[in-house]
Amino acid sequence: MKKHYFLLILFLMAHLSTQAQQIKTQLVEYKEGTTTLEGFMAYDASKKGKRPAVLVVHEWTGINDYTKKRCEQLAQMGYVAFAADIYGKGIRPQSSQQAGAEAGKYKNNVPLLRSRVAAALAQLKKQPNVDASKVAAIGYCFGGTTVLELARSGADVAGVVSFHGGLGTPNPADAANIKAKVLVAHGAVDPFVPKAELDGFLKEMNDANVDYQFIAYSNAVHSFTNPEAGNDNSKGAAYNAAADRRSWEAMKQFFAEIFK
Amino acid sequence: MKKHYFLLILFLMAHLSTQAQQIKTQLVEYKEGTTTLEGFMAYDASKKGKRPAVLVVHEWTGINDYTKKRCEQLAQMGYVAFAADIYGKGIRPQSSQQAGAEAGKYKNNVPLLRSRVAAALAQLKKQPNVDASKVAAIGYCFGGTTVLELARSGADVAGVVSFHGGLGTPNPADAANIKAKVLVAHGAVDPFVPKAELDGFLKEMNDANVDYQFIAYSNAVHSFTNPEAGNDNSKGAAYNAAADRRSWEAMKQFFAEIFK
Repeated sequence: MKKHYFLLILFLMAHLSTQAQQIKTQLVEYKEGTTTLEGFMAYDASKKGKRPAVLVVHEWTGINDYTKKRCEQLAQMGYVAFAADIYGKGIRPQSSQQAGAEAGKYKNNVPLLRSRVAAALAQLKKQPNVDASKVAAIGYCFGGTTVLELARSGADVAGVVSFHGGLGTPNPADAANIKAKVLVAHGAVDPFVPKAELDGFLKEMNDANVDYQFIAYSNAVHSFTNPEAGNDNSKGAAYNAAADRRSWEAMKQFFAEIFK
Repeated sequence: MKKHYFLLILFLMAHLSTQAQQIKTQLVEYKEGTTTLEGFMAYDASKKGKRPAVLVVHEWTGINDYTKKRCEQLAQMGYVAFAADIYGKGIRPQSSQQAGAEAGKYKNNVPLLRSRVAAALAQLKKQPNVDASKVAAIGYCFGGTTVLELARSGADVAGVVSFHGGLGTPNPADAANIKAKVLVAHGAVDPFVPKAELDGFLKEMNDANVDYQFIAYSNAVHSFTNPEAGNDNSKGAAYNAAADRRSWEAMKQFFAEIFK
């Protein structure tokens, strides 16, 4: 008898989940000052009404297929997802050298970085299908650093999640501004985040009494969520399937808490 | 229409979950060498067949109501839960001084500690309702230290979870024996785990290439999962509701992975 109920539930849930979704994606132009930026929006068009939303900040490459795939995954989970464009329309580095140079402009100019990500957040919040009280920001590598700076700016977001982001900041005292809950998903052997930087970050968060969770994933180096990063840890950046899956689950648990 | 399906699912799920459970608890005598130990077993007697199991290792107080409550929670989740008795039948410290003295005996005699926890694990694994290939061990404070030593002994367990456990060991090289996946839920400002001990633990795990996850919870000190610990962080041990809830969820996610 129990088994019959169970099968009926599975049938109904399968029915519900296949019936509905219509994931729409579109490029969206918006401005920061006089600069034109081009973000990427994904949402389930079959879903009615306002809903929680997630800002997604790209790696040092700028918006690419990986960024878009994450937005689509989030849309399938019921969120409005919007990939911020930090660099500007058409600025999509094609090599590590170009990416490093472009990311460097913003790492060396944190006020500009904060303005760029704030413009994306404002763009997302004004969407008619977004519940502006339930917005999170997530980011990868450079984007992880960016969402932490968004939090330090005092932005009104429910939570931020950094995946293998750099944890340093020129303005550690700004942690006092943080209103968001913070989740940091970190590769335990990421050579791009020196121990002093990590220790400094944890001290910064503790001193400012920020509501944070820090998770270190074993055997994970930089870029551990991105299959494009290959599988050679000795390069300092590589995909790690277990850390990818676990950190995505941790993010879901975090969202369940901050959006309830 | 969708809403009707949804309500029907909720109704059926509620029906399933209330229909069934019969949580049974019992004291269980077992031996380590010539010493008699008395553990505490909890399981759902309405559930048929073998199932995953969780060994629970007590704080420095020995088995108490808190330990039993955790076992009952795990039984409600469908596991066979068994509280190990490290100290021996009738040895239940009634003061911090007594607890410290008792815990010290085992911290200073890690071979004995490992034998005691191994005896409890064997007792659990031989239960007819336990799937011996799906057993985890969790522990609190002293018990966290204990389940890490269980892992370092090379025990055949799918995973171990330490909640605010001490992370030091006299035998860091034994990390090479670890077969279990490891989850460490740590209070970010726990004064009972010095930074050198934490750094040493992470290095130990990294050097031995252990599959681990380390989570630090902000504003959490020692005993953060135990409501009995009060709410004064300045005492070094205190309850933290957010860290308790989050670490329990992290454990569930960990179990979902290791028991699948």
